[in-house]
Amino acid sequence: MKIAVLGTGTVGRTLAAAFSRLGHEVVLGTRDPAETAGRTSPDPMGGPPFKEWHAGHGHIRLDTFAAAAGDCELVVNATNGAASLAALGAAGAARLAGKVLMDVSNPLDFSQGMPPVLNPVNTESLGERIQRAFPETRVVKTLNTMNAGLMVDPRRLADADHSVFVSGDDAEAKKIVTGLLESLGHRDVIDLGDITTARGAEMVLPLWLRLFGALGTPDFNFKIVRRG
Amino acid sequence: MKIAVLGTGTVGRTLAAAFSRLGHEVVLGTRDPAETAGRTSPDPMGGPPFKEWHAGHGHIRLDTFAAAAGDCELVVNATNGAASLAALGAAGAARLAGKVLMDVSNPLDFSQGMPPVLNPVNTESLGERIQRAFPETRVVKTLNTMNAGLMVDPRRLADADHSVFVSGDDAEAKKIVTGLLESLGHRDVIDLGDITTARGAEMVLPLWLRLFGALGTPDFNFKIVRRG
Repeated sequence: MKIAVLGTGTVGRTLAAAFSRLGHEVVLGTRDPAETAGRTSPDPMGGPPFKEWHAGHGHIRLDTFAAAAGDCELVVNATNGAASLAALGAAGAARLAGKVLMDVSNPLDFSQGMPPVLNPVNTESLGERIQRAFPETRVVKTLNTMNAGLMVDPRRLADADHSVFVSGDDAEAKKIVTGLLESLGHRDVIDLGDITTARGAEMVLPLWLRLFGALGTPDFNFKIVRRG
Repeated sequence: MKIAVLGTGTVGRTLAAAFSRLGHEVVLGTRDPAETAGRTSPDPMGGPPFKEWHAGHGHIRLDTFAAAAGDCELVVNATNGAASLAALGAAGAARLAGKVLMDVSNPLDFSQGMPPVLNPVNTESLGERIQRAFPETRVVKTLNTMNAGLMVDPRRLADADHSVFVSGDDAEAKKIVTGLLESLGHRDVIDLGDITTARGAEMVLPLWLRLFGALGTPDFNFKIVRRG
């Protein structure tokens, strides 16, 4: 499949590399490709500078949000939550129309210090905002509840005996995303329901952040233990 | 131990009966014992009328919030989140001073329809509000992330291979609560940190509610899968 991953941070890079390894044709979308390609300072999350990372992943093309989104079958939103609507706006509603959009972002707000808070919450979610802003796009919220390493290699922890959620209004889009997740090794994909259920998946982040603090590692995940 | 369980809904009844079975001396606290004792209509959550339940649990005394809290070593707040501060106020700061308060409530707000929203969120939690209102009480937030049946009998699901969280400022209080949880069968008690981490444990409720919808049963729990 031709996949556009929007966002060049740790999550975007990790997903792009993993989809590429699985044989997909992957393009990374960014606001200003020349600026991103030239970056020699470390990533804000501590990853290597983009230039250094890209040197080892030259087969993954870097392009503008618009060009990346125009030339693909499935789009992944891996931009940071505060910038997602702007990035998708730059990609363009017409280019996103009809496509499946895998939204893995979290609406974290760092403006009030650490730990970040979530915005929106309760009666709204970033997943829904994206769906509403791009009504012809088939948004599926997923993967936002775990770290990037586990997103693409769930088997590295407990042989993938943990859970991932999907939320979205389009059953066929959730099926396509579920297939992609399974190809990465996810064994327990739970369909929470329509896109409003993204409120639940997003609001788990504050617990994730406290667990990160308490356990001293981001290498954990939620498993929904149930019968059957 | 002498335990006062404040709140006579499903959660309060279930915890009171379980602690009593474990050999503790349990008193249930309510606003108006005569009114509660006389209730012949079903509980709002679908449980039997209090009168009927109490007929089978006559060894569990029913008293006012104040009398129950005064005559115990540990207090459980199992009142509904919207009423918790008032109930604890009726119990009285002096009677709660120095005691361990196990807070299992959730600040669910049903005023905007279903599903309920959480209030407060993000920079505040009900656990913290209680701790701030009763600074001499040793508040431990716990058990709010699962249904009442699993709170008291975790082994009924996957031999208790799932997790429960504790949040609180007082290490000794968390140790006492952890001991009680283990006596109920909990095998994985995760100390999230100080009482502000209750924000994380409370904000998982929206996901719990969507999982309840998606799975069609409240009989599930979160397991934090990690190494070691």
